[in-house]
Amino acid sequence: MITKIQGIFTPNVVPFHQDHRINEGELRRYVSWLIAKGVTGLYPNGSTGEFIRLSFEQRIRVVEIIADEVRGRVPILAGAAEPNIDLVLEACRRFADLGCRAVSVTGPYYFKVSQQSIEHYFRALAAQSPIDILLYNIPQFSNEIGLEVVKRLAADCPRIVGIKDSSRDMPRFMDTLNEVKPLRPDFSCLIGCEEILLPVLMMGGDGGTIATSGVVPEAVMKLYDRFLNGDIAEAKRIQFKLLEVIKTMFAAGNFPEGFREGVNLRGFDTGRGPQPMSPHEREHFNAIRGKLACLLAECGYAEAARECELFRSTRLAETRMSVPDVDAIVAEVLKRLTA
Amino acid sequence: MITKIQGIFTPNVVPFHQDHRINEGELRRYVSWLIAKGVTGLYPNGSTGEFIRLSFEQRIRVVEIIADEVRGRVPILAGAAEPNIDLVLEACRRFADLGCRAVSVTGPYYFKVSQQSIEHYFRALAAQSPIDILLYNIPQFSNEIGLEVVKRLAADCPRIVGIKDSSRDMPRFMDTLNEVKPLRPDFSCLIGCEEILLPVLMMGGDGGTIATSGVVPEAVMKLYDRFLNGDIAEAKRIQFKLLEVIKTMFAAGNFPEGFREGVNLRGFDTGRGPQPMSPHEREHFNAIRGKLACLLAECGYAEAARECELFRSTRLAETRMSVPDVDAIVAEVLKRLTA
Amino acid sequence: MITKIQGIFTPNVVPFHQDHRINEGELRRYVSWLIAKGVTGLYPNGSTGEFIRLSFEQRIRVVEIIADEVRGRVPILAGAAEPNIDLVLEACRRFADLGCRAVSVTGPYYFKVSQQSIEHYFRALAAQSPIDILLYNIPQFSNEIGLEVVKRLAADCPRIVGIKDSSRDMPRFMDTLNEVKPLRPDFSCLIGCEEILLPVLMMGGDGGTIATSGVVPEAVMKLYDRFLNGDIAEAKRIQFKLLEVIKTMFAAGNFPEGFREGVNLRGFDTGRGPQPMSPHEREHFNAIRGKLACLLAECGYAEAARECELFRSTRLAETRMSVPDVDAIVAEVLKRLTA
Amino acid sequence: MITKIQGIFTPNVVPFHQDHRINEGELRRYVSWLIAKGVTGLYPNGSTGEFIRLSFEQRIRVVEIIADEVRGRVPILAGAAEPNIDLVLEACRRFADLGCRAVSVTGPYYFKVSQQSIEHYFRALAAQSPIDILLYNIPQFSNEIGLEVVKRLAADCPRIVGIKDSSRDMPRFMDTLNEVKPLRPDFSCLIGCEEILLPVLMMGGDGGTIATSGVVPEAVMKLYDRFLNGDIAEAKRIQFKLLEVIKTMFAAGNFPEGFREGVNLRGFDTGRGPQPMSPHEREHFNAIRGKLACLLAECGYAEAARECELFRSTRLAETRMSVPDVDAIVAEVLKRLTA
Repeated sequence: MITKIQGIFTPNVVPFHQDHRINEGELRRYVSWLIAKGVTGLYPNGSTGEFIRLSFEQRIRVVEIIADEVRGRVPILAGAAEPNIDLVLEACRRFADLGCRAVSVTGPYYFKVSQQSIEHYFRALAAQSPIDILLYNIPQFSNEIGLEVVKRLAADCPRIVGIKDSSRDMPRFMDTLNEVKPLRPDFSCLIGCEEILLPVLMMGGDGGTIATSGVVPEAVMKLYDRFLNGDIAEAKRIQFKLLEVIKTMFAAGNFPEGFREGVNLRGFDTGRGPQPMSPHEREHFNAIRGKLACLLAECGYAEAARECELFRSTRLAETRMSVPDVDAIVAEVLKRLTA
Repeated sequence: MITKIQGIFTPNVVPFHQDHRINEGELRRYVSWLIAKGVTGLYPNGSTGEFIRLSFEQRIRVVEIIADEVRGRVPILAGAAEPNIDLVLEACRRFADLGCRAVSVTGPYYFKVSQQSIEHYFRALAAQSPIDILLYNIPQFSNEIGLEVVKRLAADCPRIVGIKDSSRDMPRFMDTLNEVKPLRPDFSCLIGCEEILLPVLMMGGDGGTIATSGVVPEAVMKLYDRFLNGDIAEAKRIQFKLLEVIKTMFAAGNFPEGFREGVNLRGFDTGRGPQPMSPHEREHFNAIRGKLACLLAECGYAEAARECELFRSTRLAETRMSVPDVDAIVAEVLKRLTA
Repeated sequence: MITKIQGIFTPNVVPFHQDHRINEGELRRYVSWLIAKGVTGLYPNGSTGEFIRLSFEQRIRVVEIIADEVRGRVPILAGAAEPNIDLVLEACRRFADLGCRAVSVTGPYYFKVSQQSIEHYFRALAAQSPIDILLYNIPQFSNEIGLEVVKRLAADCPRIVGIKDSSRDMPRFMDTLNEVKPLRPDFSCLIGCEEILLPVLMMGGDGGTIATSGVVPEAVMKLYDRFLNGDIAEAKRIQFKLLEVIKTMFAAGNFPEGFREGVNLRGFDTGRGPQPMSPHEREHFNAIRGKLACLLAECGYAEAARECELFRSTRLAETRMSVPDVDAIVAEVLKRLTA
Repeated sequence: MITKIQGIFTPNVVPFHQDHRINEGELRRYVSWLIAKGVTGLYPNGSTGEFIRLSFEQRIRVVEIIADEVRGRVPILAGAAEPNIDLVLEACRRFADLGCRAVSVTGPYYFKVSQQSIEHYFRALAAQSPIDILLYNIPQFSNEIGLEVVKRLAADCPRIVGIKDSSRDMPRFMDTLNEVKPLRPDFSCLIGCEEILLPVLMMGGDGGTIATSGVVPEAVMKLYDRFLNGDIAEAKRIQFKLLEVIKTMFAAGNFPEGFREGVNLRGFDTGRGPQPMSPHEREHFNAIRGKLACLLAECGYAEAARECELFRSTRLAETRMSVPDVDAIVAEVLKRLTA
């Protein structure tokens, strides 16, 4: 019997070599680390995994590596948002063969597409897919999958087993719980918005795809565990504590760079993402990295401690440097005076 | 000692006579009914009160009537969003004289205004207002009051005692709780989004300005009471139950018409709002009214039961009518046959 | 016989005294100066006139002053966008009595309102207004008046005699010309977007409400005159030349402050607008003022020349100051050396 | 010597077989037809060519076919917007080898990316591309390439030879002409908005990528020819005449389906696009197809005449059918009467 999708799934960043090839060794090491830290499952090819910036072959390869490394230890939800329905189905077949639990598919991106067309698209997918499908709602970046469409798909398509909602829209999530669950009690409602994981769980959500769980899996899994055990006070404390970490990673700009850096600070050679960063942004980014290192160090993650210290001493040095360097000036003046 | 603003405040709709004058009698009767039903306080001149469609004199008059009717039984938060700072301050003085607990002021509307300008605006208000101020964040309709601005105002301006956030943005509300409360433990964080009242309360919010509490105050106050008493299961049941009522009132279109109709169904002669409705919209609206009546009847509000029954029998009649009127056809055919 | 509305109408800024009262003297002097410079007509209570930040009485007063000063020399289009239909009609009656040519009315602002409701609203206005009406489309700030609505209103309502479109949407303006003119050849299509005045005229538009004509009426009227006389090359030269002035005024932020400053630089005591500006913005603003002064001086407007010179010398002084002040350092060092 | 890019470039739709393979035969026939009709050049892999819905290999293949069919008769601007910079450069190399005149590259899509990052991205491209680059600004679907970035790129990167602006923002296009041309007189400013082709040409634009020229190349090329020959009146007549055709094709929904249907009506077997359409949309679409056929027939395109006639007679039949079928009713009634 296939069980409902529940818990915390980690949307992994992809580590790259300098020549832009996927760093398979680090990806494997990272994934096994995540499993050791207790995450419920993995979620490759999400937005955090920058699926949109990889080639089709790279997206398949990411899931191959992860499936091979995981070897059934935890379920995999594999992103299969491809440019057209033929390629989505091709990805579905591959991911089914690799033993993934389900695929996740966004609404079409780039062009604006009508709700009718989106519904028709998912019906066609559901009719032909050899693997369960999660609707992936992320209206910031692709066409919204409206709640009315979700309801009709949930009612009619057994292949569609849930929604991962990254819209950051809690009122909509409440309506989803209220209107879809009665139609399909097995329909999984996952949140893709780190800041509201706990309120979503408390209202009856089934879990989330939480990028922060790729950086501080200990904290996110503890929050989830405390929630499951009814220790709401401690779960709340952790949720609020996480907010600053989350905000800092988003403040890095150029999502998902802040999250990649968080993973790096936990000891993985993540390399650089496919979207180049300007030197000026790189500078801002390094300051964020320092701040993040100190946040992680404060949380007790030893890997980040050295980096934090380094950051603090550099800042001190910079502050000192900006104080007029009297010695140098004196030397210069004396030189002029004696010239 | 002045206490922190907490609980459920009802943003009242304004009943009108046919000639567009405020229906003072019904407004008084409505307000006293709300108090009898246990709402924490009143919130005139909010968006639900269509402050933007009233004249300055009407806005003042609404608060005068309510203050006179309330006579200190519950606190009043009075909307004082006026076209310019002189008029806001004039309203502040009037509402202070009337004994209101605080005023609520939106960011400037119509023009786009910078965050710096908004901060400067509220600082100027805070420096001169004789009454406490709530920031009213409603970016759908007026310039957003950014969280950074809120933090600086909270830190520097004792006159600014809280925020009423109607942005429907729960992640932002979480950040507000996390970043403002440590600076100002007395700073009140109220939500203005009915759908997420309970999650907000559970995460530490201080209450809300909840338009639905103007229609079914019994249910909203019971939710709040159950929350305060730790009966989360029942509070959740009520929150979810309310979602359909809320959705129906929004589905009426032309906010706040659905809420006005809800109040009407509870037995008040609300009249029609200042924004005219087209005949076609009126028709759609009547269907919504019927549905709302039945929802309220199901919840046990007897006033709505007759209306619901009427609605159901009309629908039946309409359905019947659309069945080909055999008698008429027979008559016609016979006429032709015998012609 | 009433003639079609055509030409360049100036949306005037309102000069204020320090105590926020309207500076009647300067307003009169400014209006007469505009007429002397040849503008086709005046357009008080537009967005440039910050109608939204004035009280109802102030809006009426602005038109009274202008009507009295103009004394029929040029036509007046008076903004009558008020919070509700009763107040719009009250303004219509007043402006009709003052001899205005027409009123201009935006779609409702603040709340989102359906197209049906907007159509119904303008039909109700058209049925009761004693004065011709221009639709004022400015979707940046108020509900859009969709083209389908414009077409039906133009076809059915003789009182509605034109549209002033500030949407900055040239494709829509093209469609308006193409679809409305055949229904109502007398329907006036005015543009409210300075940057595309000439293309609009060349495609058959009837003119514009051009805020820039309140700052450099000579240039805008010359552009219009050159266009009317078929000297497109010179009209183009002026249009392009104006772009930098326009951009500079918008770059001041807090619209319409840049335009107010432009009028000030032409020699009018405009005072400060009702929306306060933060000290930091004021600083940015002063730099913009300097740049604008130099642009105007280059165009030959002598009033701005002194200001430009002042600006340039200040900048020079600032640049000089930022060069390390070697003398001061030497003095300091010598003092230390000899200490 | 390489000449500046000027004139009308046709963004072709891609014809497909029923099994979703590219219909090479029809693509060749279509392209040669366009050349015969006099279009300046071709623009494969634009939004009209649905580049986003093809695989990388298909995008390359489309240009291979077209380059082979064109054989240097007209210049080709080939869309090279790929998921990451390595793939863009790979496409650039292929298209350079195929003899294309230039490539066109959008800002990154899906994720929001900062202006700094966009600038850095295009600088990196320009440094390594073996072929000239056109910036493709289409903020509806991908990150806007801000004017400040365009200016810096134009000033510094000889490889970047122009912009194709599909933003529908004429004020911005005016500023582009005004601010970029003085820096780089050879910089080509093309419009990608059919409705404003003529105003853009009159103000100094270099031409456009005009999807409508793929449907009625005769009309668009005549407009351009009349403009070049100073017959503005006739050019205006054509521009306005085209507006209804354009609007009808957009009204089909699911861009670029309306344009695909237009090409089909001109006698090409375009097949169906990669994005499936719901049955309900298909119905709406067929009505649009009929309307479009009649518009084209009125313009004298004989291929569309039969389709138009068919459409008109079907509509008549439908209208007839909706009239109560008296005979059937009589039969039924008589049956009942005699039962």
